[in-house]
Amino acid sequence: MAKMTPRTLSGFMELLPAPQQQMERIMKVLRETYSLYGFTPLDTPVIESSEVLLAKAGGETEKQIYRFTKGDSDLSLRFDLTVPLAKYVALHYNELAFPFRRYQIGKVYRGERAQRGRFREFYQADIDIIGDGKLDITNEAEIPAIIYKTFSTLGLKRFQIRVNNRKILNGFYGMLGLTEKSGDIMRTVDKLDKIGPDKVKAILMGEEIALSEADADEILKFIAITGSNEEVLAALEGYQGRHEIFDAGLAELKAVVKYLAAFGIPAENFAVDLTIARGLDYYTGTVYETTLLDHPEIGSVCSGGRYDNLAEYYTDKQLPGVGISIGLTRLFYVLGEQKLLNDALPTAPADVLVLPMTEDLSAAISLATTLRESGIRTQLYTEQKKFKQKMTYADKIGVPYAIFLGEDEINAGIVACKDMTTGEQTKLDSAATIARIKAGLAELEKGAIILE
Amino acid sequence: MAKMTPRTLSGFMELLPAPQQQMERIMKVLRETYSLYGFTPLDTPVIESSEVLLAKAGGETEKQIYRFTKGDSDLSLRFDLTVPLAKYVALHYNELAFPFRRYQIGKVYRGERAQRGRFREFYQADIDIIGDGKLDITNEAEIPAIIYKTFSTLGLKRFQIRVNNRKILNGFYGMLGLTEKSGDIMRTVDKLDKIGPDKVKAILMGEEIALSEADADEILKFIAITGSNEEVLAALEGYQGRHEIFDAGLAELKAVVKYLAAFGIPAENFAVDLTIARGLDYYTGTVYETTLLDHPEIGSVCSGGRYDNLAEYYTDKQLPGVGISIGLTRLFYVLGEQKLLNDALPTAPADVLVLPMTEDLSAAISLATTLRESGIRTQLYTEQKKFKQKMTYADKIGVPYAIFLGEDEINAGIVACKDMTTGEQTKLDSAATIARIKAGLAELEKGAIILE
Repeated sequence: MAKMTPRTLSGFMELLPAPQQQMERIMKVLRETYSLYGFTPLDTPVIESSEVLLAKAGGETEKQIYRFTKGDSDLSLRFDLTVPLAKYVALHYNELAFPFRRYQIGKVYRGERAQRGRFREFYQADIDIIGDGKLDITNEAEIPAIIYKTFSTLGLKRFQIRVNNRKILNGFYGMLGLTEKSGDIMRTVDKLDKIGPDKVKAILMGEEIALSEADADEILKFIAITGSNEEVLAALEGYQGRHEIFDAGLAELKAVVKYLAAFGIPAENFAVDLTIARGLDYYTGTVYETTLLDHPEIGSVCSGGRYDNLAEYYTDKQLPGVGISIGLTRLFYVLGEQKLLNDALPTAPADVLVLPMTEDLSAAISLATTLRESGIRTQLYTEQKKFKQKMTYADKIGVPYAIFLGEDEINAGIVACKDMTTGEQTKLDSAATIARIKAGLAELEKGAIILE
Repeated sequence: MAKMTPRTLSGFMELLPAPQQQMERIMKVLRETYSLYGFTPLDTPVIESSEVLLAKAGGETEKQIYRFTKGDSDLSLRFDLTVPLAKYVALHYNELAFPFRRYQIGKVYRGERAQRGRFREFYQADIDIIGDGKLDITNEAEIPAIIYKTFSTLGLKRFQIRVNNRKILNGFYGMLGLTEKSGDIMRTVDKLDKIGPDKVKAILMGEEIALSEADADEILKFIAITGSNEEVLAALEGYQGRHEIFDAGLAELKAVVKYLAAFGIPAENFAVDLTIARGLDYYTGTVYETTLLDHPEIGSVCSGGRYDNLAEYYTDKQLPGVGISIGLTRLFYVLGEQKLLNDALPTAPADVLVLPMTEDLSAAISLATTLRESGIRTQLYTEQKKFKQKMTYADKIGVPYAIFLGEDEINAGIVACKDMTTGEQTKLDSAATIARIKAGLAELEKGAIILE
């Protein structure tokens, strides 16, 4: 028979078992952390009606969409988790309780040009809090706590949650009479890290934006405000009373900063950063970025912000919200490339491989059943192979423990258990063996998931 | 602005938060149970190249496939998890260790005619064990243990894993010289439960299959063999020595039955059932079905079997395997329709709702942080609403505990905690409150996930 060469599409991540286990471990942390903060899991269809999904979209996004017809239906694959959330909240408005807090970890699709590190199918891990009409500022203050908990649970210490408020920026540009140009200015200022202040100034004074030198200097002076949270807030207070929107933004930023300690966020993991604007016009208040201090080249690993109207394309209800998103597939890819995924954590499909050494398997199977009942992930290896091949298999799957069960052990009521890392072998009864394995596994699991 | 009416496509399940939590709970049991038996999680793309995905497919399947072009690519959405597994194993053959045990819980797509209870996007939850060249029969004996563990962990007692062996059937038809007709015969016999023996006999002797009355009687006598496992095996031994394939099948069936007790499977949850053939021509040895004894109308909730060549369309390697699949979305839908999902288990997004009664939120936020650090899922409610509206919210999300924190409590170093189920309120310090909540949650979580 002619064979079809198996292949996986370019831009689609398909992991081998060991890295898949690493990915699962990260997803588990995300699910558990989001749950800890009272977010409910949601799962919406990958396919939506094009007219519903694309009610808002246009331009670059629309070009990338996987859109097709099936029968009479014009269908599209979701390209983010926000539009499906907007649809969900508008559709199920009467059945939901607000504030509605949901998390969703799901695949989204964008037909981007294939290149290294760019994915066409990728996971986003989003949380959002949606209010009905209003949403208290404390929700915005809570978001950095969730980001902190997420990344510290993943094992990181040297990361920084950078926060700004769009109202402060908009208000500041309002003071200078530059509201019309604020979009262009923010896009330019956003490049500060990459191109430096001189080039930013040149662009601001260039043909397109055409600011006066005084205005450009004002802006550079403003975004150069740095220091501790208290220092930045004190500097911002100097601008107070000149613009209503600025004052509102400053009050919000103070509220966010006020409760940092109560939310358990160490000062070194948080910074007010006036250069952050977030590309999307969507955000209206607090905005967030998260960077790994030793790996700035990765860019923001978790971003988001406050928006005023989630579902305006579907409903007249005013649904303000705040949310953050982790581009999980890209993050996982970059962490792997940079060798930042901790390979010392177990990735085997099982904790124990049971190798029966007798023809009758009853004792080995009973032992496997006992191990499983005690919560130990157990694989029974019963293929007719030579001992050496069995050990090669144990090594290849990276199983932490191997148990040998021969006549002698069965008669003596003991179990021979080999620690595959140290080579150390014990002969204990099954209860003591289980205790030893559990202690060993707990030790193995202690390491950070992501290295620094 | 004109609004687009939000809607979800017909045939696509989109759950409200409470049922979504029930679904998540089931998925968690599946993930944990499969892991306990040494299966590694896998995640393959939803989209595959059409020529790869459809190397084998044809007929009814091909018509249902979501197929489309993007740029120059002819793409299809996966319609099951088996073909992607075959592709995966063939593609990554050199990097995998065999036997390769994987589980996958993922969405698949079939553009079926929309009707109640039929889904176009649905989850399958599959496990498979793939051997390289050979695969020991003990793997087939282990599968019922996994099915038993899965459904008993979901809270069920009254279910039966029904097992047969295709070689026994093929061998038996071989004895009668009816090998050519065995496919037609098995498809007819499969209807026994629905149409009864008389109609089966009529069809067997009808124009199409045209058996003699003697042959039809032999077949009906054979499939009428019932009783305990020992009784059925004893009756089958009466046919031994007449056909090689039959004898091989009987030996396999005996091996599967032999280790039931060691695998921890109670006798009442297992039955040899000679009427089971499974529609697919794919299976070559042991076949499995699982039925809920009090709900036969649901049909098999977990089916599968042994196959000889997983990836013959992609590789010359002989890759025999055994696997089972749960049609999770359909099962969940049917359980919901039949009111078999236990609504007494908590489905709230949080275990505790913290309601601050002071203007400064520091104490309430610190308490929420402490609760979360102890693993309690906590939501902080800070909207400016009347007390009654706050309690309505607590009721609507179904949160098990509400904590009120006013000046008095803060000054006294205590916490007022209301059990929302019983209405009982305690005033204890935070450590005692956490202990009480944890004990209460453990009690709430005790119930079965699926009712009988």
